[in-house]
Amino acid sequence: MQNYKMILEYEGTRYNGWQRQGNTDNTIQGILERKLGEISGEAVEINGSGRTDAGVHAAGQCASFRLETELNCDFIKNELNKRLNRDIRILRVEQAHPRFHARLNAKAKTYVYRICTADKAPVFTRHFTYLYPCKIDIEAVGRAADMLVGEHDFRAFTSNHRTKKSTVRTIYSIDTEYSDDILTIRFTGNGFLYNMVRIISGSLLMVGTGEMNTEDIALALNSQDRKKAGVTLPSSGLMLEKVYY
Amino acid sequence: MQNYKMILEYEGTRYNGWQRQGNTDNTIQGILERKLGEISGEAVEINGSGRTDAGVHAAGQCASFRLETELNCDFIKNELNKRLNRDIRILRVEQAHPRFHARLNAKAKTYVYRICTADKAPVFTRHFTYLYPCKIDIEAVGRAADMLVGEHDFRAFTSNHRTKKSTVRTIYSIDTEYSDDILTIRFTGNGFLYNMVRIISGSLLMVGTGEMNTEDIALALNSQDRKKAGVTLPSSGLMLEKVYY
Repeated sequence: MQNYKMILEYEGTRYNGWQRQGNTDNTIQGILERKLGEISGEAVEINGSGRTDAGVHAAGQCASFRLETELNCDFIKNELNKRLNRDIRILRVEQAHPRFHARLNAKAKTYVYRICTADKAPVFTRHFTYLYPCKIDIEAVGRAADMLVGEHDFRAFTSNHRTKKSTVRTIYSIDTEYSDDILTIRFTGNGFLYNMVRIISGSLLMVGTGEMNTEDIALALNSQDRKKAGVTLPSSGLMLEKVYY
Repeated sequence: MQNYKMILEYEGTRYNGWQRQGNTDNTIQGILERKLGEISGEAVEINGSGRTDAGVHAAGQCASFRLETELNCDFIKNELNKRLNRDIRILRVEQAHPRFHARLNAKAKTYVYRICTADKAPVFTRHFTYLYPCKIDIEAVGRAADMLVGEHDFRAFTSNHRTKKSTVRTIYSIDTEYSDDILTIRFTGNGFLYNMVRIISGSLLMVGTGEMNTEDIALALNSQDRKKAGVTLPSSGLMLEKVYY
């Protein structure tokens, strides 16, 4: 039994997210498992570092899988790339420690949310930029972002707010940048709740437009009430950039 | 009569190039003229800084046009953007001197050609990167590129090599860069012959792979013989980046 670690990128536009859904699905995991099955002749389970929702992109998703028969890493990479559409690309396959698991061992992740505030999205990044024409106060966005950094109970910032599991997470950094009408919000944290990045991005965008202020964000955080936070932005602007182990 | 200057970007993949071809065409110029006609109620002729071929992209194409009735520049920009698909975006419209003409007054242009030498193109730039899996000697590419800089007769580097017009042009710079398996070749010159950037890029790529050397490029240049130069690369990797006036 050989364990493998794989790094890949994909444009999520045409897919129903990462997680396999039955046999006739259109998910990244499902497609990868089918193709890897063709190559290896084995029934393979591929574990991602986490699910990405329908429409979410990844520049550095990580996944792990085991094969009964050891195959060369570059062979796996090349054979998968040949069989996959142009919107999924395997960047690297390497042998991993027998106990390595892409989800269970993930220490931290970086996500990026991109918003275009001009009247039309840039042509060359239109498929992974959310268009929201408006004027932004980037300093206000930065102040509100700073306030969310650290260990907090982010229950107000998840769609799954009735969960009984802990909703405490640590955000190590939220970097905000605004140039050429593109607001880029980059989150690094030890884990993110369901829709957390999209809801925080929506809340920060509302701070940028003046619909919310830093005080509102603080109140939302303390309230643990989803209704106090901002809107959930669409999946199209979200990208999983990197997973740390 | 008011004269206008317009800057725009487009992904050329779905279009038959810049230049209008009859009434039922699928060209950038044809589409822009139809949409601007709807907005202004006039029959408008739009002059580009130059034609881009089918499949060629532009990040900073420039065009000029005249309207009988003066319209607000931002109004023109916004109304065009609303009517155009997401793969064409107007960046700026401004009033221009009555005699300004986007093609006749162009002083210089910058074109970029992008080649991916890995086994598969990057997902997020796949539509404007030419895939050619190989190993590259980037220093050899740089030396050959340097040799083509300056004023030369580039007759060997055009598909239209039987023209009676002058084929002398000046290339101010050719910058070559190679990182993450992407070879980027950026040309700035006072003008480019038909297919000249694609043929020089093909020749430089052949130098990179060892199929040609710097000496061969010098011989091709002096021979004025198209057959001595390298292959014409596909339009998909080519982008008009900027026009200087």
